[in-house]
Amino acid sequence: MGRVTERRKVIRIRDGAVSARPDTLVAEEPLEIRLNGKPLAITMRTPGDDFALAAGFLVSEGVLGTADELQNIVYCAGAMVDGSNTYNIVDVKTAPGVVIPDITLERNVYTTSSCGLCGKASLDAVRTTARWPIDDTHDAHGGEAPPVRLDPALLAQLPDRLRAAQRVFDRTGGLHAAALFSEDGELLDIREDVGRHNAVDKLVGRALQNGALPLSRAVLLVSGRASFELAQKAVMAGIPVLAAVSAPSSLAVDLALESGLTLVGFLRGASMNVYAGEDRIALRAAAAQG
Amino acid sequence: MGRVTERRKVIRIRDGAVSARPDTLVAEEPLEIRLNGKPLAITMRTPGDDFALAAGFLVSEGVLGTADELQNIVYCAGAMVDGSNTYNIVDVKTAPGVVIPDITLERNVYTTSSCGLCGKASLDAVRTTARWPIDDTHDAHGGEAPPVRLDPALLAQLPDRLRAAQRVFDRTGGLHAAALFSEDGELLDIREDVGRHNAVDKLVGRALQNGALPLSRAVLLVSGRASFELAQKAVMAGIPVLAAVSAPSSLAVDLALESGLTLVGFLRGASMNVYAGEDRIALRAAAAQG
Repeated sequence: MGRVTERRKVIRIRDGAVSARPDTLVAEEPLEIRLNGKPLAITMRTPGDDFALAAGFLVSEGVLGTADELQNIVYCAGAMVDGSNTYNIVDVKTAPGVVIPDITLERNVYTTSSCGLCGKASLDAVRTTARWPIDDTHDAHGGEAPPVRLDPALLAQLPDRLRAAQRVFDRTGGLHAAALFSEDGELLDIREDVGRHNAVDKLVGRALQNGALPLSRAVLLVSGRASFELAQKAVMAGIPVLAAVSAPSSLAVDLALESGLTLVGFLRGASMNVYAGEDRIALRAAAAQG
Repeated sequence: MGRVTERRKVIRIRDGAVSARPDTLVAEEPLEIRLNGKPLAITMRTPGDDFALAAGFLVSEGVLGTADELQNIVYCAGAMVDGSNTYNIVDVKTAPGVVIPDITLERNVYTTSSCGLCGKASLDAVRTTARWPIDDTHDAHGGEAPPVRLDPALLAQLPDRLRAAQRVFDRTGGLHAAALFSEDGELLDIREDVGRHNAVDKLVGRALQNGALPLSRAVLLVSGRASFELAQKAVMAGIPVLAAVSAPSSLAVDLALESGLTLVGFLRGASMNVYAGEDRIALRAAAAQG
């Protein structure tokens, strides 16, 4: 590990001036995720937080929901000819009694016999595999809690907080970032990865390991676009608010509308678009500021 | 088809002003790719150019290399309960005699017995599945040709040409774009998709259908980062130059160095970084401009 970045030679051209120097690049390597010894998926990822990545991936797939369903995660040894470890294969062992749902090898692949293959099938699959509904009216101990309600002015500050906390991006420019914030705007955790879905899996996996799922009062902020896949990961982790710096896709919006997920896009300074779940955004506060 | 964008309601917040209006979003739906009737992969993509997407995907996987290896591509009908077509499943039929290599269901998944799972295994897999070396010293008819040599000033113009040609991005902000340029900087083709790999597959698939593979004198420009997967697609299509607006990953650079691919990153105005294959960049011209 500690292989988040690597150095390579680069020839820089700047307004006609040519220079050669070493450059810091984001590291990318394959990770094979095994479930109880059986290969399940391979993802190209930035090394580091691999156990969290594997755990979060399995939350997204509906396999894991609580820390006690996870027995342990290990690197598989002996992968190289010389017996050394590439640290690129992890095996997740579930606790006795955990029922493994029928999941496919391909990520985000859902077909239902009732509707062929369409966006609706993708939405249906999330609904049937979700471990919890999105519910911000109860706290972690089951007591009643006021629904999450965010001031747009607070949301507007989150992208800057994300960027300030990004460590590797500054050096490489090559990483997607995802962060969890409290409803008060406090940065709870941040992960960076060459793959946007991996960054979210690492966040969610860490939360699972810490017994913090469902993340029923958290805001998930992603540095890029909001695809169906990212909205799916938010829903599977019970996160009530997904905010993206860039645009959402149609299917991400549809999933948010169906799941009760608040989806904010184009979050840039004091400007943002709310595509679903606007009851969690204090619109009156926004109007009063205007 | 014609479902490249969809409309959804959005609540806009702009400096405190709140307004509701319809918004145009990039469409995202699943596409299942079948090979000779057998399901092979599912990708979340922007509908449109689905046959090109499927063909290009199979070029990347080493299944297809020439147009005559492709018998036909059809949408599978009858997927819905009512017998209507979702246009989300395509079946690619190869010509008689085409040998199908052993490909896995997971994209970009390569393991070799000799080295476990590591970056080197990913590089090895590209080498063993590539249909052609990158060779810009011969023209399409096998005659000798001068190697491709690009002036940095020409490269510097390509991102603006890409953006000028992007049709859907302006409306949605949600699309990755990829374009092919001639060595003279002429825009040959451009594709947009919610997935960056799909945009490149659509370009390459169209080239296959037109009998234009290998694209031995083309420049591939992508609007985002240069991952291993995108470098792999360039190599598999025989493209000698990959330029990206943002950062490359370590493994993309390694693949470029090993394959003889010229890899340019951070292509922004007159600034760019050359990570591999600098013999195709006229550095003396750059220095003379300085």
